[in-house]
Amino acid sequence: MTIFHTTLPLPTDDSIGLYDVTATIQAVVNSTQVQQGQVLVFCRHTTTALAINEYETRLLTDIKTYLRKLAPPTEVYRHNDLHLRDVPADEPENAHSHLMAMTLNTSEVIPIVDGELALGTYQSVLFVELDGPRQRTLFVQVTGEL
Amino acid sequence: MTIFHTTLPLPTDDSIGLYDVTATIQAVVNSTQVQQGQVLVFCRHTTTALAINEYETRLLTDIKTYLRKLAPPTEVYRHNDLHLRDVPADEPENAHSHLMAMTLNTSEVIPIVDGELALGTYQSVLFVELDGPRQRTLFVQVTGEL
Amino acid sequence: MTIFHTTLPLPTDDSIGLYDVTATIQAVVNSTQVQQGQVLVFCRHTTTALAINEYETRLLTDIKTYLRKLAPPTEVYRHNDLHLRDVPADEPENAHSHLMAMTLNTSEVIPIVDGELALGTYQSVLFVELDGPRQRTLFVQVTGEL
Repeated sequence: MTIFHTTLPLPTDDSIGLYDVTATIQAVVNSTQVQQGQVLVFCRHTTTALAINEYETRLLTDIKTYLRKLAPPTEVYRHNDLHLRDVPADEPENAHSHLMAMTLNTSEVIPIVDGELALGTYQSVLFVELDGPRQRTLFVQVTGEL
Repeated sequence: MTIFHTTLPLPTDDSIGLYDVTATIQAVVNSTQVQQGQVLVFCRHTTTALAINEYETRLLTDIKTYLRKLAPPTEVYRHNDLHLRDVPADEPENAHSHLMAMTLNTSEVIPIVDGELALGTYQSVLFVELDGPRQRTLFVQVTGEL
Repeated sequence: MTIFHTTLPLPTDDSIGLYDVTATIQAVVNSTQVQQGQVLVFCRHTTTALAINEYETRLLTDIKTYLRKLAPPTEVYRHNDLHLRDVPADEPENAHSHLMAMTLNTSEVIPIVDGELALGTYQSVLFVELDGPRQRTLFVQVTGEL
């Protein structure tokens, strides 16, 4: 039984942005030589998320619009009353980012079959920045048998 | 350590529909004889989802109404501008289905205790069709010890 | 390979409430002495959920407001027509709780690295009561190597 993990740097370039990390994750799986098992992809941030869906440019725009409709950045939130909290001077007003993250997922578990992520034809693993741009990281843990 | 997977056909009969797949998953677990471990149920589609909740007829209707309120099929979406995309002639206008799928989950991990799915009394594993009816499949991976 | 599980009592004190269960889960991991692996935290209820996010008092209020906006308790739901269902006399009108639970997650999988939950600085594991107060339980399964 192999249990391997790594943390990869993932710089983002937008306030809300979706990044296809499928090839990155497959490369980690390849490096372990695990043939049957699972990969756990995990966000160690509270204003990013993971999803598995289609990486199609126009759909990505729809997803951003959808998230902004669910949790509008312009709404009044208590978490954004920074003067009432003990926070650093550069603390962002990002309550909406936390709410979007909770609507999506902190992690995804993907099966590995014969050394490959067992994804469907149109599925990509999407890292979702919700309060960027920032230097982020992606935690990847591979479990299985060679 | 047993790692077993199978892919099961799952035809659906509605545009948005919820299907109780608990017994199907338990049967896969039974076939592996795994006593302690986990089952990973995974959608290999981008317009279906999984959830664990109560399979109660009137609640199923509420869930459909809720999903249609969150991501109305009639709204304008960029993903639905099919003439601007390189797609087959029968490509559906299904941006809302992708958004609903992202709000729910692509997978569920369920513990196995003494050979049984460790679900609560009112919990069922629900496969959620969001752009049907279609021929779908369900990926099931069982990991654990005999 | 260790596979260990336990079910912990978790009484709640609010109709919608968020409880930080991080230390409880870490204590279970400690008791197993697993160093590398995963913990699966699982709700065995249909009107509770799990999430991983920041446990900040003002944000918790925003989360409750957000959930009540998505699935207002005062809306008309078919599941709440108790006279049309075969239910106990004390059955609550809780369709909104089910919808909130489906929007969040039934489970979370958290990596264990060197015996510790590999959470980010601001991440807590949150048990989310959506139809309380009630006596609830939390299922925790630890898998990995000593």
